[in-house]
Amino acid sequence: MNVKIAPSERLDDLQLKGYKIIQDPEMFCFGIDAVLLATFARVKNNDKVVDLCTGNGIIPLLLAGKTEASHISGVEIQDKNVDLASRSVLLNDLENRINIIQGDVKTLPQSLFNYKCNVVTVNPPYMIGNHGLANENDSKKIARHEVLCTLDNIVESSANLLCDKGRFYMIHRPFRLAEIFATMMKYKLEPKSMQLVHSSVDKEPSMVLIEGIKGAKSRITVHKPLIIYNEDGSYTDEILLWYGEMKQ
Amino acid sequence: MNVKIAPSERLDDLQLKGYKIIQDPEMFCFGIDAVLLATFARVKNNDKVVDLCTGNGIIPLLLAGKTEASHISGVEIQDKNVDLASRSVLLNDLENRINIIQGDVKTLPQSLFNYKCNVVTVNPPYMIGNHGLANENDSKKIARHEVLCTLDNIVESSANLLCDKGRFYMIHRPFRLAEIFATMMKYKLEPKSMQLVHSSVDKEPSMVLIEGIKGAKSRITVHKPLIIYNEDGSYTDEILLWYGEMKQ
Repeated sequence: MNVKIAPSERLDDLQLKGYKIIQDPEMFCFGIDAVLLATFARVKNNDKVVDLCTGNGIIPLLLAGKTEASHISGVEIQDKNVDLASRSVLLNDLENRINIIQGDVKTLPQSLFNYKCNVVTVNPPYMIGNHGLANENDSKKIARHEVLCTLDNIVESSANLLCDKGRFYMIHRPFRLAEIFATMMKYKLEPKSMQLVHSSVDKEPSMVLIEGIKGAKSRITVHKPLIIYNEDGSYTDEILLWYGEMKQ
Repeated sequence: MNVKIAPSERLDDLQLKGYKIIQDPEMFCFGIDAVLLATFARVKNNDKVVDLCTGNGIIPLLLAGKTEASHISGVEIQDKNVDLASRSVLLNDLENRINIIQGDVKTLPQSLFNYKCNVVTVNPPYMIGNHGLANENDSKKIARHEVLCTLDNIVESSANLLCDKGRFYMIHRPFRLAEIFATMMKYKLEPKSMQLVHSSVDKEPSMVLIEGIKGAKSRITVHKPLIIYNEDGSYTDEILLWYGEMKQ
């Protein structure tokens, strides 16, 4: 497949089955969040997955390489990201397993509801409204701030997409944990496990990984903390393991 | 003050201003949970505090020694605990700062609602119904299992007791975290901070400390994990600090 890559774009190796991703530095480029989410999500053989707010398609690409999901749909609202993600799918010959759909989380196309997926993943905008660092271009702002969709929109759509006992995986910021749990429970996505991610053990967590199960009973497993760095600044063995699962 | 201590009871030194506590091994004796909760709770000078499910009065005694609270009311349903706690108050000459009230969390006496407290603390029964290890005598079962009151009862009463922006402090088991947050938000006790307590850094947390503020906006601070033991089984410096605050 002959896929065009613009001079302003870059091609990054995912160190996973030879997969590569096209990224545009003007847009939101993936970080450790995406890798953690794709490793935390329990995807079983033949599962059908929807990834909301898919951006440049990093989560569908990682899940295609790391799991035996039968199909992954990535939903993205921004034209430029849809174009980037679609070209990365073609570049890796993954068009039979991944499709990228342009759509709004608030008004998803009916086809996705007929899809009856087992797993929803989402690495959503973390910040409420325009709070925090908002001096960015519009496309990065849309990725980081709840400009076009809110946490409530995302959780409601995820609950509607999932089959009974379907699994929901999200990475988010800990400062919104209470709101996240309340919103999930409002839409019957029961929080079933969580893991806090700390840059070091003596620091507050910077991220939280959350699993919800549609229609499950109330009881959550809080995992041991995931620590990113050793005291000397090197990656911990555990993070290498999480990253290492990318390598085949 | 001449306070009688039965031969079946024991007198334990709290290593805090010379305070002692009368405990009955047949009843629930205090553990690390009580010490952590009394250290986690932010009690300001002249605050009025209500401690629900006070048991043998350990939390009021610790708070009387550690803080400048003007008054602390301990509420307990079991006769034997009310008697133990009342005698410990007398023994330590604290009857001007602590009173022990026999009462049911579900139907608290009106006097407590007129009290307009700034802080509620509670170390409640952790287990739902009769789940878990229930082969205990009735009084210990009441302390550990939600036989006589539920989480919902406790949070509702706490919210009713507290003045606007009053603070709620609870220690509980992490497996109920989602339910705890949802229940607190139902009664407008916004979860504002939490700290997970781990026996060691590579273990799941065994306890969670939670702060709620009545009528506050949504935003929670998740503190760094509190680790109890070093690898060699000794207490960590941090736990010694938490305990050490007991010593004056």
